[in-house]
Amino acid sequence: MDLHELIKSLKTEGGKIVMLISDGIGGLPLQPGGPTELEAANTPNLDRLAAKGVSGMSTPILPGITPGSGPGHLGLFGYDPLQFQIGRGVLEAAGIAFPVGPDDVCVRCNFCTIDKAGLISDRRAGRIPTEESVKVVEILKQIKIPGIEIFVEPVKEHRFVAVFRGKGLGGDVADTDPQKTGLAPLDPVGKDDASKKTAEAAKEFVRQARELLKDQPKANCLTMRGFAKKPSLPSYEDLYGLKAAAIAVYPMYKGLASLVGMELVGTPKTLEEEIEVLKENWNDYDFFFVHFKYTDSRGEDGDFDAKVKMIEELDKVIPGIEALNPACLVVSGDHSTPAKISGHSFHPVPTMIVSDLARTDACTKYGETEASSKGGLGQFQAIYLMPLAMAHAGRLAKFGA
Amino acid sequence: MDLHELIKSLKTEGGKIVMLISDGIGGLPLQPGGPTELEAANTPNLDRLAAKGVSGMSTPILPGITPGSGPGHLGLFGYDPLQFQIGRGVLEAAGIAFPVGPDDVCVRCNFCTIDKAGLISDRRAGRIPTEESVKVVEILKQIKIPGIEIFVEPVKEHRFVAVFRGKGLGGDVADTDPQKTGLAPLDPVGKDDASKKTAEAAKEFVRQARELLKDQPKANCLTMRGFAKKPSLPSYEDLYGLKAAAIAVYPMYKGLASLVGMELVGTPKTLEEEIEVLKENWNDYDFFFVHFKYTDSRGEDGDFDAKVKMIEELDKVIPGIEALNPACLVVSGDHSTPAKISGHSFHPVPTMIVSDLARTDACTKYGETEASSKGGLGQFQAIYLMPLAMAHAGRLAKFGA
Repeated sequence: MDLHELIKSLKTEGGKIVMLISDGIGGLPLQPGGPTELEAANTPNLDRLAAKGVSGMSTPILPGITPGSGPGHLGLFGYDPLQFQIGRGVLEAAGIAFPVGPDDVCVRCNFCTIDKAGLISDRRAGRIPTEESVKVVEILKQIKIPGIEIFVEPVKEHRFVAVFRGKGLGGDVADTDPQKTGLAPLDPVGKDDASKKTAEAAKEFVRQARELLKDQPKANCLTMRGFAKKPSLPSYEDLYGLKAAAIAVYPMYKGLASLVGMELVGTPKTLEEEIEVLKENWNDYDFFFVHFKYTDSRGEDGDFDAKVKMIEELDKVIPGIEALNPACLVVSGDHSTPAKISGHSFHPVPTMIVSDLARTDACTKYGETEASSKGGLGQFQAIYLMPLAMAHAGRLAKFGA
Repeated sequence: MDLHELIKSLKTEGGKIVMLISDGIGGLPLQPGGPTELEAANTPNLDRLAAKGVSGMSTPILPGITPGSGPGHLGLFGYDPLQFQIGRGVLEAAGIAFPVGPDDVCVRCNFCTIDKAGLISDRRAGRIPTEESVKVVEILKQIKIPGIEIFVEPVKEHRFVAVFRGKGLGGDVADTDPQKTGLAPLDPVGKDDASKKTAEAAKEFVRQARELLKDQPKANCLTMRGFAKKPSLPSYEDLYGLKAAAIAVYPMYKGLASLVGMELVGTPKTLEEEIEVLKENWNDYDFFFVHFKYTDSRGEDGDFDAKVKMIEELDKVIPGIEALNPACLVVSGDHSTPAKISGHSFHPVPTMIVSDLARTDACTKYGETEASSKGGLGQFQAIYLMPLAMAHAGRLAKFGA
């Protein structure tokens, strides 16, 4: 019996869960023995939660492994990121919050410029500005292929997403970008029968696109990369019996949440607005994923002080969440993004669970040193955070008699 | 995707790693509440590393499992000791630093004495002294079998190693020692076709040996045990992309390191000489395994104070390693060898990682109580030490986007 079978067999009714994810929350001291970003921040509300709840360190994937946003969030949602891998095309589609379905093959596309001989002269079509790209993508929406539904959506500059929706389409199709100029785009080639069907559709898509774009000054052709279907993920409803809502500002996190069947609620632009959306939807869902992006952004910038400020912003919304009185409030991150290294890292993530069922530990602050030296949850893999949240919300029955 | 596939897919260029293994470093207090050997030792340099780096407790195999040297080191090297098992013949060959190849079947041999009727009168040939055994082994080097290369090497007293090298030789051959006197040695019997081929070679080896040894007063015959091929271990180069050097005094550890493809460098006789070898080879390798034996030896002797002294010897070489400025310095052991029990034990091993990427914890001493109560690495399985070392040396790329 694996973890998912176990959870499915034990899930029951219970209280509401809020999972507050501060992206890249974990950090590093700038000097050995110094404070991390979290430890430098003034966080009276988070510290109060630490004193009330139970803390620990979450390892996103495995020790030493630095996660991208996709695997980082899958782990938090309780899906083993080594078992459920999200292909590049699906991640790109998720990144614009495109609702990827089970019959979809998603592709990352680049506009490129070809010369009269059909050879690529610019692989990124002069990085045309997004405003311009949006218009060219609009033109491509005219493309029709019998038996297959096609979606094209702009991403940024020369990048856009194409989705082929149809029964029996495979995702194992080779990239068509020859990776250098002076060569023609490659024909899409499928590895198996289902993927050959996709490759045929992709070829026809390109044929029509070239016809439609032939008079464009720059974006007169396209290349395709990262063909992928979404992994077969059991939904939150199936797995946990949870009606789940995702509240996020950034499209990527909306997309990842929708892959596991969460509903996207509201269109908040700030953390304060996210908490408003949480309040407005409080009665309609069992589970709320609330995503705060800027701790990661300022970490990526390498700006320690700015990340500290973002953590202090996060701290301010805590009373608003507490006022809703969730049965279980989880505070964690998808990975660490230490300002010291201006990027994602492998370091475990300080994590708290606040619930009437929490076994209080000696932690009185939310931070790496406290959580790892005094945390009652110890060090655990992120995929166990959802079972812990379910348990702390009284949503898992006894196993065996 | 398993751990090795993951590591292979993420490995990248990065800094140098030193893995300093003090054999059997973990200990036990003689009295409840007293210090362990490590805690009793005066170790200013190791304590400084603890303050600079991050500590934790490494479980060699699984909780409660006491490892031998083979599995203990395989775990440290990142190979699951339950998946990759080293047969006794291979361990004996590794123990004399014989470079075991993929087509080799290794066998532990004992000289024995047989009477005129061909029955064993002494299963250990009177434990002939090593000097004498070396000469008898020399005689056996005359043995030739068409199509098979044969190596015979002395070990100690009546024990020696035979290696049959050839394509298609299997390792599943039964022991020939009847386990008591008054019986004839058994014929080697192979379980499958490949092993039957080995058994035929072994039979012919014994036939020629008996002819060559018939006038020996004691060592006039031999028995064979522990036929084994080496497990199919991916090399350090394949798995981690590391050019790895092993620096050890004792043959066993050289042999274990060579099984995973490390190069044996230098012929040091003391810990100080090992550090000299490290310096001399610093520019030529990415990874250095440095093995210190005597913490284990004095633990095995049951001599608490002598083990404390050996730990203090270890402490003295730390500045010489630090001066080389490795990107990542790991200090650990393959298992615990508490003087209190005069043998290997199952207790987790205090472990430190020193690196600019280490998330400093509250530890200020190298020892069991500090590492287990304040260590930022928590408790982890030894097979994750190499992924952690790679990560701390900047040698693992991000997983997923």
